[in-house]
Amino acid sequence: MKRLAILGSTGSIGRQTIEIISHYPDRFQVLALTAGRNVHRLAEQARQLKPELVVVENADSAKELRGMISNSIEVMVGDEGLIAAATHPQAELVVVAVVGARGILPTLAAIDADKDIGLANKESLVAAGELVMAKAKERQVRILPIDSEHSAVFQCLQGQDPDHLAKIILTASGGPFRTYTNEQLEVVTPKEALRHPNWDMGAKITIDSATLMNKGLEVIEAHWLFGLPYEQIQVLVHPQSIVHSLVELVDGSVLAQLGPPDMRLPIQFALTFPERWPAPWPRLSLADVGSLTFAEPNKELFPCLSLAYAAGKEGGTMPAVLNAANEEAVEAFLQERIAFLDIPWVIGEVLETHQNKERPTIDDTLAADRWARRQAQHIMKQHPLKG
Amino acid sequence: MKRLAILGSTGSIGRQTIEIISHYPDRFQVLALTAGRNVHRLAEQARQLKPELVVVENADSAKELRGMISNSIEVMVGDEGLIAAATHPQAELVVVAVVGARGILPTLAAIDADKDIGLANKESLVAAGELVMAKAKERQVRILPIDSEHSAVFQCLQGQDPDHLAKIILTASGGPFRTYTNEQLEVVTPKEALRHPNWDMGAKITIDSATLMNKGLEVIEAHWLFGLPYEQIQVLVHPQSIVHSLVELVDGSVLAQLGPPDMRLPIQFALTFPERWPAPWPRLSLADVGSLTFAEPNKELFPCLSLAYAAGKEGGTMPAVLNAANEEAVEAFLQERIAFLDIPWVIGEVLETHQNKERPTIDDTLAADRWARRQAQHIMKQHPLKG
Repeated sequence: MKRLAILGSTGSIGRQTIEIISHYPDRFQVLALTAGRNVHRLAEQARQLKPELVVVENADSAKELRGMISNSIEVMVGDEGLIAAATHPQAELVVVAVVGARGILPTLAAIDADKDIGLANKESLVAAGELVMAKAKERQVRILPIDSEHSAVFQCLQGQDPDHLAKIILTASGGPFRTYTNEQLEVVTPKEALRHPNWDMGAKITIDSATLMNKGLEVIEAHWLFGLPYEQIQVLVHPQSIVHSLVELVDGSVLAQLGPPDMRLPIQFALTFPERWPAPWPRLSLADVGSLTFAEPNKELFPCLSLAYAAGKEGGTMPAVLNAANEEAVEAFLQERIAFLDIPWVIGEVLETHQNKERPTIDDTLAADRWARRQAQHIMKQHPLKG
Repeated sequence: MKRLAILGSTGSIGRQTIEIISHYPDRFQVLALTAGRNVHRLAEQARQLKPELVVVENADSAKELRGMISNSIEVMVGDEGLIAAATHPQAELVVVAVVGARGILPTLAAIDADKDIGLANKESLVAAGELVMAKAKERQVRILPIDSEHSAVFQCLQGQDPDHLAKIILTASGGPFRTYTNEQLEVVTPKEALRHPNWDMGAKITIDSATLMNKGLEVIEAHWLFGLPYEQIQVLVHPQSIVHSLVELVDGSVLAQLGPPDMRLPIQFALTFPERWPAPWPRLSLADVGSLTFAEPNKELFPCLSLAYAAGKEGGTMPAVLNAANEEAVEAFLQERIAFLDIPWVIGEVLETHQNKERPTIDDTLAADRWARRQAQHIMKQHPLKG
């Protein structure tokens, strides 16, 4: 019986995590669930899983939730509630599926409380990778990646001597605009950008996939998770999303992990690691797929990728600023306040005006995050945008 | 310093083994070399590597060789010499790159002498897999596969719990006649069959590649090497020969090993296992390759594959008979005594007339091999052939 806390249980990853747990009711116990404002779904999950603690974003949601679930379940709110869920005394594994910078503090708190982490929150590694990995090493807890690319790399590296790793090759679908021209990109709408060819994900990450920022953030995550310099991390466009990523070893041998585009597999692997359990989903048939194609990413058309490499290489607070500026720009694009091609432009402007701080504390990181959000909003108000 | 014996040093695998050893003169010592009748190349190798023992097929070759190499090197002949090389007291790893059934006894002798085996000889597993694997388990020696497919599976399975293995998927180039019709296959010549699209190999194995018997023999090898039932071993046509094979795990995750079509990588991995050493050959670029394609094999057009599955499933002496009949038929095809489509026909006839013997001893296996050769010659003399 594995005891879990799930942070962000009503989002896409959280819901799929619960779907997997439902296949094995005798092998998992869920102690805490947290959500934002999706009170109805959270109540439903609480009735199904009977956790000891549920957490929502604010007091109004808490009041609403209180009337919908058993009195024996404790209800908490906000960051305090998130930390309480992340450090639940009986939890062994904390699934951090919160979206955005809000995931950082609970991740750190869970590591401090000696929990293994199932990490779907990119920002914990992008903005605070140095701290998170150092703390995980110190506390000897596992960081189990929950996304298809890093799970693929993690799976390929099982049983490999870390010194044999020469290169990580992260695959990218290329997003819905992979074959567009610059002129076509100028006029794409949020609706078009939200139509991802292979993966059914949340809105923010789908836009990141269309700009390739998603892959840029994953490059920074891979740098921290696997301890490899940026020069040894490559991105390869692979529109079919069947090869989830690859590693090249020092002798030139390349290992890859493949599967249908289905997040349940990497989620289940993080939940069951180091075991693997039989699962009910369809198997990959490469004969049915027929053809897998690969190409270099177009860095001119999708400058977010180069912005991420540059911020990653500079290090310090730069990746936190990259991430925060991107969140603000994507939100503005979704609200149709800026155009698609403004997203990298806004991020670039924010990065250029940032005073980098090396070896940041968590406070430095969070301060840089706040500064970058203000600066992005300021730039979007003051400057003539491309759109 | 790893101490080696190389059986079959003048063939394709033997020469590439020596090429790799030449990159690391301080890390390998070669104690014994064996060849057939290629005395000049063997003498050259002996002058380079200074082994203690060299072996040739017969007394005439031995006499010729004696005059070409240092007197301090012992020269032996025939099977006695092969066994002496395979059991050289100081050797730790014996590379068995002898082609054909002649490789079986030296492989068994080397295992009995507690040597790890770098196995390029298919027949040791096809004809005597049950014996070889039981003995290897008993003596606790490693059988390190030296061919691209089984090395790929072996690499994918490093660090995996054997109980998690659900399926082995061996890739096949499909050979030069992959897209041919039955009518076209009826008239192909040895010269056309020897033109392999991706791999530069010996004549016998190149014909096996064109008939898909090579893949059939590899299915039987995989069965013994990895202990999986035939139902869980599949063949997938992949004309680019970049994905060298794949494994599917119980949760549906698929791991693959990739690389340029270059035998030096699996040879080096067997030589350096469990280490991996940096190597000078070109790296795989999937962006340059562009596209990888996959299809089911055409079992109607290439019946050798089904013959191999059937012989493998029956077990006993059937795989030895399959292999021996195939060797005779391929030799007859290369001498233009039979047509390409006669190869599976001859093998099928021999298998049908064989009295199978279960749990064969090595003598049973070698007797079945001899019987099958006589029977194949008899059939080719007596019956009207298709060609």
